[in-house]
Amino acid sequence: MIFSDPASVAVVGASDDPSKWGHWLARGALTGDGRRAVHLVNHGGKAVLGRPTVRSLSELDEAPELVVLAVPAAHVPAVVDEALAVGVRGFVGITAGIDERVIRRIREAGARLLGPNCLGVFDAATSLHLAWGKFQAGSLGVVSQSGQVGLEIAGLAASSGIGVSRFVSVGNQADVTAAEALLDLVSHDLTTVVGVYLESFGPGTVAAMSALRAAGKPVVLLTVGSSVAAQEAARTHTGALTSSLDVVDAACRRVGAVRVPTPAALVDLAAVLNSGVPRGARVGVVSDSGGQGAIAVDLAVAAGLTVPRLSSVDGLPAGASKRNPIDLAGAGEQDLANYARAVEVLANGGEVDTVVLSGYFGCYGADTPSLESAEVAVADQICSLARRSGVTVVVHSMRDDSAAVRSLRAGGVPVHLTIERAVAALGHASRLAKSSLDVVPRAAKATPFQPGYLAARELLDFVDFPKAHAVTTAAEVEKTALKGPFALKADWLAHKSEHGAVKTNVTDPAVAFEEMRERLGPGTYVLEEMDTREHTVELIIGARRDHSFGPVVLVGAGGVHAELFRDTVVELAPVTPDAARDMLARLVSAPLLSGWRGAPAADVTALVEVIAQVSETLAARPDLAEIELNPVRVGPDGVLAVDALVIPGMTSAQLALSATVRS
Amino acid sequence: MIFSDPASVAVVGASDDPSKWGHWLARGALTGDGRRAVHLVNHGGKAVLGRPTVRSLSELDEAPELVVLAVPAAHVPAVVDEALAVGVRGFVGITAGIDERVIRRIREAGARLLGPNCLGVFDAATSLHLAWGKFQAGSLGVVSQSGQVGLEIAGLAASSGIGVSRFVSVGNQADVTAAEALLDLVSHDLTTVVGVYLESFGPGTVAAMSALRAAGKPVVLLTVGSSVAAQEAARTHTGALTSSLDVVDAACRRVGAVRVPTPAALVDLAAVLNSGVPRGARVGVVSDSGGQGAIAVDLAVAAGLTVPRLSSVDGLPAGASKRNPIDLAGAGEQDLANYARAVEVLANGGEVDTVVLSGYFGCYGADTPSLESAEVAVADQICSLARRSGVTVVVHSMRDDSAAVRSLRAGGVPVHLTIERAVAALGHASRLAKSSLDVVPRAAKATPFQPGYLAARELLDFVDFPKAHAVTTAAEVEKTALKGPFALKADWLAHKSEHGAVKTNVTDPAVAFEEMRERLGPGTYVLEEMDTREHTVELIIGARRDHSFGPVVLVGAGGVHAELFRDTVVELAPVTPDAARDMLARLVSAPLLSGWRGAPAADVTALVEVIAQVSETLAARPDLAEIELNPVRVGPDGVLAVDALVIPGMTSAQLALSATVRS
Repeated sequence: MIFSDPASVAVVGASDDPSKWGHWLARGALTGDGRRAVHLVNHGGKAVLGRPTVRSLSELDEAPELVVLAVPAAHVPAVVDEALAVGVRGFVGITAGIDERVIRRIREAGARLLGPNCLGVFDAATSLHLAWGKFQAGSLGVVSQSGQVGLEIAGLAASSGIGVSRFVSVGNQADVTAAEALLDLVSHDLTTVVGVYLESFGPGTVAAMSALRAAGKPVVLLTVGSSVAAQEAARTHTGALTSSLDVVDAACRRVGAVRVPTPAALVDLAAVLNSGVPRGARVGVVSDSGGQGAIAVDLAVAAGLTVPRLSSVDGLPAGASKRNPIDLAGAGEQDLANYARAVEVLANGGEVDTVVLSGYFGCYGADTPSLESAEVAVADQICSLARRSGVTVVVHSMRDDSAAVRSLRAGGVPVHLTIERAVAALGHASRLAKSSLDVVPRAAKATPFQPGYLAARELLDFVDFPKAHAVTTAAEVEKTALKGPFALKADWLAHKSEHGAVKTNVTDPAVAFEEMRERLGPGTYVLEEMDTREHTVELIIGARRDHSFGPVVLVGAGGVHAELFRDTVVELAPVTPDAARDMLARLVSAPLLSGWRGAPAADVTALVEVIAQVSETLAARPDLAEIELNPVRVGPDGVLAVDALVIPGMTSAQLALSATVRS
Repeated sequence: MIFSDPASVAVVGASDDPSKWGHWLARGALTGDGRRAVHLVNHGGKAVLGRPTVRSLSELDEAPELVVLAVPAAHVPAVVDEALAVGVRGFVGITAGIDERVIRRIREAGARLLGPNCLGVFDAATSLHLAWGKFQAGSLGVVSQSGQVGLEIAGLAASSGIGVSRFVSVGNQADVTAAEALLDLVSHDLTTVVGVYLESFGPGTVAAMSALRAAGKPVVLLTVGSSVAAQEAARTHTGALTSSLDVVDAACRRVGAVRVPTPAALVDLAAVLNSGVPRGARVGVVSDSGGQGAIAVDLAVAAGLTVPRLSSVDGLPAGASKRNPIDLAGAGEQDLANYARAVEVLANGGEVDTVVLSGYFGCYGADTPSLESAEVAVADQICSLARRSGVTVVVHSMRDDSAAVRSLRAGGVPVHLTIERAVAALGHASRLAKSSLDVVPRAAKATPFQPGYLAARELLDFVDFPKAHAVTTAAEVEKTALKGPFALKADWLAHKSEHGAVKTNVTDPAVAFEEMRERLGPGTYVLEEMDTREHTVELIIGARRDHSFGPVVLVGAGGVHAELFRDTVVELAPVTPDAARDMLARLVSAPLLSGWRGAPAADVTALVEVIAQVSETLAARPDLAEIELNPVRVGPDGVLAVDALVIPGMTSAQLALSATVRS
């Protein structure tokens, strides 16, 4: 428990100058003075915050368990050596630019280092405050790769009322990683929900997020597209179509986490999740103003929520508009209890999972003090309705500072000054999928990788391809028993269109063969029957290995549309056929598969099996880097892959070398 | 000037009970007491706010120019009659449910009514405060069809520092319309930017917005999709593909206004526009934290802004990352002046139009009082850099309440607690197009409307169609000189596919004719050559008449993609060929037109002429309701319309009747 509840701490670099970090760290450390020994080290030996200091760690009677390094980088090596000599077991490296050799010395001594270049650590459960900034104790566990972003999250958590249970700024992660800091939160009782800011995803991150979710602590992830490590140069369409953030989102779906774009979105979602994950995406809107209700509904729809029509609205005041949004139309102002009645109708009606109350509620008592106690009573009623019904309630109020607003927050109902924050939190929450169990891939074939199209067809023999023959001479072409029209392909070339190595709609194959062979030279060519079925839909199915998250699988609309409209869905591989079916349903072009405008429906059962097998094959075979079937044509009578590409990964020798380097 | 600077006012229904509207209205009215006579009317004659009252208007020595109606609806008729009798010229109808006959009496007496069911009016220039709520004087003119939404806007304007110049809650618009209230702001000196909330768009609204823009006062429009009047049942794809909000956005582009989704977005954009419309969409990001900079960049890209690479970054501190975002990497904290230096580099570099400063700036003085004056000085420098350079600066600060934040706001630099609000405002601003001049339609042909496909081809003779013959007998079909493959169509049916009234890829036209004629009966059929050109792109071009905004024109990707991917662009009609070119460029599938993957480029010049002509024809001919060319096929050698549909509008007799009803 070095970094969560050390028996004793020392701040090296403690200062009495309030513009110095050493001042804030000393001040924070002293808040835990009753629970643990706090030593302040000042190289001049001057008193700090009215407390005596020592000039160096060696002057102390006992070795502090944890040392905060808040001295210039040049002084760090000497401080660390002295600390290790007296038996210090952990360091919080606030200072940036700590030498690599010093870090190695710490690790070799069996001690641990948080940072360097971090903002420190805070733990509300143990009064451990070894960090810049102020923290309000609460239930959000924060792990951040950026100190400033972590601080912003903590500040917003304070003002939203959820507060922080534990804050870990991991800085450069020279020793303690974000994954370790996340895993620590699994057993941290105060923490009910976790917010994490990451710019890169080291080993164990996904497993830690998964463990948190399994422990009933949902994870909200903030990351950035612009600084996620640049993607490898794309060798396939699959590579070009699976962006870093798509893969992050797939990982989140797999572990039951959710990605948000900003610190405020993180905190707002955490405040919702603190009372439990909403049951679904159906939202009911209540307002005393038609305009505010309509604005909320527009935002909800844009956020992917559903705004169902209501069938049971008994109990609403006369004059209220009883659709969804429920517009109290002045009845709220006339009798504040009508706000609670409307929430009650929604919470008990079973037709919505969440409620947004938007507008003037929260302002009445502030305008007219005689209304304050009535408004607080209604606020308390709303909180208790939310608790009893399990329906998530979020409030947008035109005031942020009233007694009723404070009551709502204290009762677990988040309140926002802008309607967009209220609705965005519910939108993000609705994407919080249940953690799916790890998929055990079925046994993959051991066929060794061979280059070329024909070898790819053999490797991927779980999918049908059109009938084809390998041909090397015109004579072989002429005696073919295949039926036209044909496609003619050079077996050995990967990007066939670019090289003129594929010709379709061939009716005279001998002529086409002579032409292509003259251009590309001798070799194995493939004469293939074309798929002339009607009512087929073209898709791309691909899988590749992501450098952070491992195997991923992609399904997309075929032809130009995958690229132009980016109509693609990505998941971590392997996926089950059921998960593949869910992927297809999320394509914008999904309606084409289920019988568009009277066409017969496509054979989706065969299609999802192919997707699952592509994903399992890549997941089970580290010797393959990418698999791509493009296009795949699916019709009422099954699936045909019309082209295939397999790209080898590392050989076993390369894999062994890579394992050595990483460890 | 009845509603902006009346010589005298009376509040009927004035009350001493602070929970009554009559109390707030009396209190507001009295703030203008120095400028005008303020009379309070209380039916019991009791003193209100320490002021004597009269029991009725007739007890007053002089007739007030403007009367506020804050009495129950049942009492309104008597009050109005009395007021009209003594010569009152205007009414502010706070009360809801005022009888239609009373409203007629007011209008017949030549007096005016604001409302009823409104929240009143406020004018900072004349100390006129006849409205519920508190207002901070400023520069945002607010016109709102919802009182509560208007109040929310005013409240957010106060906290953002921009304040309100004039506030008009138009309520039910029984007499004074939103359009009139908007036009009033053209000559209202305090107003520099206008925010308007509308749920419907009456006559004159667009013209008023246009006049405001011409007066240099940008208009920010808040409206809702869910309550905009339901669209007429769609008779064409064009109808189904032009949503209400698409048309609102088209109207905004035409007049140089911009639509936003929420009150906060309205105020945040207004705060930006208050210092002038940003020059463009190129944004530079400055932060002391890499994480916060990256988050801002991600948001900017998502908001449609561009984040250019910077070439000239001389003057930044060593250690700062000099790409975009500029990451001061701690140099900001070490020397606050580095924040101003970074803004200066961007403002003077000529490579960005706007700057977002995100993170800790604004917090230093609050953490460490000795830093406050330095931080305020840097804030002032940033404001003056923004003013001098004409580059728009917006700040995200982790504190909302510091001296530096107040200085920034006072200097015209908006500050937000969340980065999303800062970036969203710039995103919306970048959509603020210059007002385009009204397009004068070229003379449209006077060909009278005739039903059927052949007549549509004749009416729309500015576009080429495939060669075709009208045929009524098999004999006529057999002697055709047209070349196959053919399309065969029943001339008189509008929705041909649904009725089996079109057959394509016909190679034996006589057989196809006999089959179709047997099914659909005798009549005029059209035998048409099919367009077999290679490298063509399919589009839909349509125009219809919107009930609020008049003629609109639509261009969309053809086939299933217009519908599935909603890849469509709508503008008010008519459009010039240049504007049509701009529409095409905004299609997601635009790259298909300019030579996708080595294909020859399409004849866009011919295409934009067709779009312009379709738009002009509908705009010039009120006897037509809709025109649709679907699909239009454009290739390297020109445009062919492959099907056309014209739907008649009102006859001239119907038009005359409609004009009578409206007036």
